[in-house]
Amino acid sequence: MKLNCDMGESFGSWQMGHDAAVMPWVDMANIACGFHASDPDHMAATVALAKQHGVMIGAHPGYDDKPGFGRRHIPHTSPAITRLVAYQIGALDAICRLQDATVSYVKPHGALYNDMMAHEEVYLAILEAVAGMNRHRAKPLALMILARADNSRYQALAEAQGVPLIMEAFADRAYDEQGLLVARSQPGSVYHDSQRIRQQVAELTSGKVTTVSGRSLALQADTVCVHGDNEESIAVVKTLHEDIRS
Amino acid sequence: MKLNCDMGESFGSWQMGHDAAVMPWVDMANIACGFHASDPDHMAATVALAKQHGVMIGAHPGYDDKPGFGRRHIPHTSPAITRLVAYQIGALDAICRLQDATVSYVKPHGALYNDMMAHEEVYLAILEAVAGMNRHRAKPLALMILARADNSRYQALAEAQGVPLIMEAFADRAYDEQGLLVARSQPGSVYHDSQRIRQQVAELTSGKVTTVSGRSLALQADTVCVHGDNEESIAVVKTLHEDIRS
Amino acid sequence: MKLNCDMGESFGSWQMGHDAAVMPWVDMANIACGFHASDPDHMAATVALAKQHGVMIGAHPGYDDKPGFGRRHIPHTSPAITRLVAYQIGALDAICRLQDATVSYVKPHGALYNDMMAHEEVYLAILEAVAGMNRHRAKPLALMILARADNSRYQALAEAQGVPLIMEAFADRAYDEQGLLVARSQPGSVYHDSQRIRQQVAELTSGKVTTVSGRSLALQADTVCVHGDNEESIAVVKTLHEDIRS
Amino acid sequence: MKLNCDMGESFGSWQMGHDAAVMPWVDMANIACGFHASDPDHMAATVALAKQHGVMIGAHPGYDDKPGFGRRHIPHTSPAITRLVAYQIGALDAICRLQDATVSYVKPHGALYNDMMAHEEVYLAILEAVAGMNRHRAKPLALMILARADNSRYQALAEAQGVPLIMEAFADRAYDEQGLLVARSQPGSVYHDSQRIRQQVAELTSGKVTTVSGRSLALQADTVCVHGDNEESIAVVKTLHEDIRS
Repeated sequence: MKLNCDMGESFGSWQMGHDAAVMPWVDMANIACGFHASDPDHMAATVALAKQHGVMIGAHPGYDDKPGFGRRHIPHTSPAITRLVAYQIGALDAICRLQDATVSYVKPHGALYNDMMAHEEVYLAILEAVAGMNRHRAKPLALMILARADNSRYQALAEAQGVPLIMEAFADRAYDEQGLLVARSQPGSVYHDSQRIRQQVAELTSGKVTTVSGRSLALQADTVCVHGDNEESIAVVKTLHEDIRS
Repeated sequence: MKLNCDMGESFGSWQMGHDAAVMPWVDMANIACGFHASDPDHMAATVALAKQHGVMIGAHPGYDDKPGFGRRHIPHTSPAITRLVAYQIGALDAICRLQDATVSYVKPHGALYNDMMAHEEVYLAILEAVAGMNRHRAKPLALMILARADNSRYQALAEAQGVPLIMEAFADRAYDEQGLLVARSQPGSVYHDSQRIRQQVAELTSGKVTTVSGRSLALQADTVCVHGDNEESIAVVKTLHEDIRS
Repeated sequence: MKLNCDMGESFGSWQMGHDAAVMPWVDMANIACGFHASDPDHMAATVALAKQHGVMIGAHPGYDDKPGFGRRHIPHTSPAITRLVAYQIGALDAICRLQDATVSYVKPHGALYNDMMAHEEVYLAILEAVAGMNRHRAKPLALMILARADNSRYQALAEAQGVPLIMEAFADRAYDEQGLLVARSQPGSVYHDSQRIRQQVAELTSGKVTTVSGRSLALQADTVCVHGDNEESIAVVKTLHEDIRS
Repeated sequence: MKLNCDMGESFGSWQMGHDAAVMPWVDMANIACGFHASDPDHMAATVALAKQHGVMIGAHPGYDDKPGFGRRHIPHTSPAITRLVAYQIGALDAICRLQDATVSYVKPHGALYNDMMAHEEVYLAILEAVAGMNRHRAKPLALMILARADNSRYQALAEAQGVPLIMEAFADRAYDEQGLLVARSQPGSVYHDSQRIRQQVAELTSGKVTTVSGRSLALQADTVCVHGDNEESIAVVKTLHEDIRS
């Protein structure tokens, strides 16, 4: 079970997150690419930090929306999404090359991630971007998507494009009976208790999760998403890191 | 002698230039990369147009300054310039890959181009970006710079980084005794007469140029910069194209 | 019957529209305020042009979306819309004051206009912005909205806030039986024939419009929206101007 | 002696400064206007906070440069500076009106402030913006500038335009023999010791300052600039507040 974390979300003089504090405890860094957050300088600093700690680098493309931090749905055609995602992967890839580092995977951000899971045409547009990048890569980029109880449809579409998938679960989010995340607007949808979070990661490592109604559901995940927003969440990440390594 | 032209400078709903009309007559398209102009959609459309006409694709990175169209000097550290340029090359490269096209060279835009020619540290920062991109490329990107009477210093620096240079001259600009462009603020600095422009390109093809004082000066150029701004300038480009082919 | 036209939609080096050519023939200039288009310099130039021709100046606020030209719906809370609109009115008002000109009304742009007509809470948020501006104005700003067969609900809400309304119709758009615009995606929704457009303006001047099914419907409008995009549309505007004056 | 502090410098999801913690201890809030920092929502929140604590509201306009936080000199013509400043004052004024608050003064930010003090034409362009706003205001906006040993030239220019000046000194910066700030690049240019800062404010309150060479110099200041960046600097602000009130 790998820990992935959004990183490099500072912009100009504005700091966000505690990348240096959380980087030692994660396996995969989803690095913002300058559209919803970051800029060439912060991208370079985050790549350097990931490289120093041997953390895999992922492109974290989002909608072109700094005022909304990429969390607002903005209408795009499918070809526009393909270009938007490719542009950002290529940009991070170039920043990596300056440091002899490399992008390994792609995880869409915020509203783009949600749209990808909700609308097959958005997913297809993103797959096309990743497949386009892979055409001349020795090692193909993978695409990270949300693990659900049944992933067969999205897996078949990725296979058709030759794009490896990384299935992501959430350490601190409640799951419903269909293996979907309980909406943040619902009470109890986000776990704050570190024991509850550790238990969920332990379960996910065994390929299952306990739903809000207490039922155990099969859920295959390669990675869990963690957060480096504050001291408390970083302490949780460190504990999860130690749990997994032990 | 190759003709190069700035392209893809539209942005969102704003059109600029007549790319479709001028593309058939040029050899090299300098495509804006989303910082001073363009966006992923216009970049993709311009790449498609270049590919259709067999025109070489160049990345045309600029300062992050749409309000000033990249024509204003904005202070940057050297490492910031390296990242700024690499980011934009990588972004265009990704857009190209979606269409099985490829970036062949880099020509900085506007104030960044001027700063490159005026300040050796800016030139070095750009060279570092191009060299960084070349580390894993089969065919290295070249860098286009302004041809001057004596280019030995800039050529030595490029060789040290293994970056091929493309020397650019201007078809419609007056040259002074040092082989430098006469400042646009000076009367007679820009030629509008198509015969004068054709004569200058013919001379440049023979490795020389007539200066404002009427002296013939040696000037080695691989390409001349032309403009597709309006019907008149496009007609000149077509004539130059025919002159060179004949 | 007054003619209103979107103006000042250039941005930096990008030109849009032919403001100088169309300004002499219109009564009201809806001036973009720097969010979906324009910038302080283009705003000032457009204000100067309007003043020169004695044309009323309206603020034309839009979503903060230059890449999408304010035509994309972007989710906002109601208070955020109120601030977004107030900010832009205030900005244009300041540019006007530098020239001893004044803003007379507000017409939301693009997706914001559509959202205003489709969602009462958006309309209320915009009313609140205009009412807030009016608190210390001798002459209140009016709000321009789309004239429909029944405007009583929107009129009552505006009255409650003390905001005068300007009812707008379209010269070149087909109307359905409910007095709504036929969607642009429908065939025949946009009139291109200048005779048909002149006839519609003549009808609107008498308080009615002929629907797509040929029925005459009552529609009270104070102004019709015209376009200065190209030579043809500007010729139509000039003709409408002469029709109205005759 | 009044304490002024830069405020409202957050942007979208990015927080900057501790406005709520420092607002109770200052007299004047310089509120960013959406160009180098802030947006309509953060402006509104900062205005509300200032109003709650009875703090004077100042517009804090900067260059249109979020990536550089307004700290980079960007070339502008004088008329462009006048419009840039007017636009931002008008925008904040509108946000204030929504809350029945009012802008009282203008303090340019960062590179624009430095350019104003270094180049008389920039100062004149800013004066013109403020004077333009004042034409229809009952109570004129004042302009805050850097207090120097001899302010006669700048005072005469402001008087000619009818713009009141507010003279600003720095609590934590070393002064040289000419009454200019010692450049930040020099060792000892910034005071970190709270006793030293308190002493300087006490001296400034008496119309003088001790220069780096230990000489006492006359310096007339109406306000000192303080910072709410971190807990330590906020504690200093609170102490200065108590010193002044006692």
